[in-house]
Amino acid sequence: MRKPDTPSLQEDLSTAASWVEKGLLSISMRHAPISRLPSLALYSLESGGKRIRPFLCRSACSAVGSPPDSALKAACAVEMIHTYSLIHDDLPSMDDDEMRRGKPALHTKYGEKQALLAGDLLLVEAFGELLDTPLGPGRVAMMVARLARAAGPQYLVGGQYMDMYHSEDAGADWIHTMILGKTAAMIRVSLELGACAGGADDDVLEALSAEGDRLGFLFQLTDDILDQCGSAEEMGKEVSKDTGQGKRNPVSMMGLDAAAKKAEEMASDISARLMDIRGDWSKVAALALFLPHRRK
Amino acid sequence: MRKPDTPSLQEDLSTAASWVEKGLLSISMRHAPISRLPSLALYSLESGGKRIRPFLCRSACSAVGSPPDSALKAACAVEMIHTYSLIHDDLPSMDDDEMRRGKPALHTKYGEKQALLAGDLLLVEAFGELLDTPLGPGRVAMMVARLARAAGPQYLVGGQYMDMYHSEDAGADWIHTMILGKTAAMIRVSLELGACAGGADDDVLEALSAEGDRLGFLFQLTDDILDQCGSAEEMGKEVSKDTGQGKRNPVSMMGLDAAAKKAEEMASDISARLMDIRGDWSKVAALALFLPHRRK
Repeated sequence: MRKPDTPSLQEDLSTAASWVEKGLLSISMRHAPISRLPSLALYSLESGGKRIRPFLCRSACSAVGSPPDSALKAACAVEMIHTYSLIHDDLPSMDDDEMRRGKPALHTKYGEKQALLAGDLLLVEAFGELLDTPLGPGRVAMMVARLARAAGPQYLVGGQYMDMYHSEDAGADWIHTMILGKTAAMIRVSLELGACAGGADDDVLEALSAEGDRLGFLFQLTDDILDQCGSAEEMGKEVSKDTGQGKRNPVSMMGLDAAAKKAEEMASDISARLMDIRGDWSKVAALALFLPHRRK
Repeated sequence: MRKPDTPSLQEDLSTAASWVEKGLLSISMRHAPISRLPSLALYSLESGGKRIRPFLCRSACSAVGSPPDSALKAACAVEMIHTYSLIHDDLPSMDDDEMRRGKPALHTKYGEKQALLAGDLLLVEAFGELLDTPLGPGRVAMMVARLARAAGPQYLVGGQYMDMYHSEDAGADWIHTMILGKTAAMIRVSLELGACAGGADDDVLEALSAEGDRLGFLFQLTDDILDQCGSAEEMGKEVSKDTGQGKRNPVSMMGLDAAAKKAEEMASDISARLMDIRGDWSKVAALALFLPHRRK
């Protein structure tokens, strides 16, 4: 099996993080606000995180031979949707998590209704940012449609709803559907939007969508593995909370060793398939190969 | 002063309501859902209301000489954004309203976190529906941009945030900005999207935006007047709640008689200006003239 080129991947991740954080400095919600609400949203948006989705967006744009900056607005948009979902997930009426990324969650710091509206704001503004992508309206409309689909009832928000009814009776298919929605859709759409922004053809996009789903599933699988064995300090959030509430996941169902083996196999498979897609997908493949080895 | 042609307006309002309710029967979130979440959102979306925004959307499209169905997706989208804002506004952490449109609010019926996600869903799906508008991508992208702007930090969600800090110290300018955001922006964008869908030129859109803001302000003014003198039964919600909490509004600041006089003057002004815009704006003008006489 291929070994991940970890030092160069870490450099690429760090480059993508700086790049999107610079992009977030010029999003339109900073201008002429009528209230302090944007600054609350920025507290969450600027509190770090791995910026995996912007990395995927940027890498997919480069992979199809375009300058990464074509995908900057898309990268900001996916990070804004991701951040909105975390803010709403953390609310007292939802998961009731007081910490996020090693800092007080937005509602802990500024209040519950403030966090609710800041999440709403990020959701709206993600679409606003994406529309600012300097491409023809046909391609921009295609990107907005894909983002709406990924964030919508069939994927992100539908998966979050399923997770509320996640019990110890959940079957493997049910859990798979939930993961595709709650986690994989935003991973997949990050790749899609980056490739779209870079001018990818339909056949590239189609192949990429399938790998995006698999990569998203792998991401969740390795997250669940870490949740079983990581420390709260490494993760920056409470660990083993889901399984403590009787929520089954692939790791609890198949056991830690089998899950780790499956993650290795998936990573190897995904990276091989990615390399078969037209373009240079080595950076995304490197992330797939690294995921089973991640420690946070 | 012109008198409103009330019987024909009531007929137009009722036609627009049936029209958008039929349109809502084929929105995409009904298809292949992975969870019950869309049915929760539909509980709120289908619980009636005056459908003023869809009426404005439809009327603006007709006013510029196009068949109203060109604006159907836009009308569904504005009603979905309006409904999302009501669902989130009613939440216990926000206004904590148990009733809406004479029925239990969504969170009262299905739970708080369920209502939170149903609101998120409607917000995302509004953009998804709008993208389905059967027009060229340039015009669709323009409509999505206007909707994102109206729902964003400078308008709807910014106005909702301001309202949380609404106190008895609020000045007239502050209140005006809040009303432009919280109420007027969605009235204005309903007119804009309908006219856009009908193929309106930039100069028509510009004139319309200005009247949309005024019409939205008038709508809020007559709402506040009703809130002072209407009954809970007529309104389908708790009345005098805002002023009971010490929130100032134009009516509490200028007194009921002066407010009623101002509403009549504004209605007359708006209807005269609308009739100066190229196209046949008589239906929208009729609504403006009717507003000071509304009883619910």
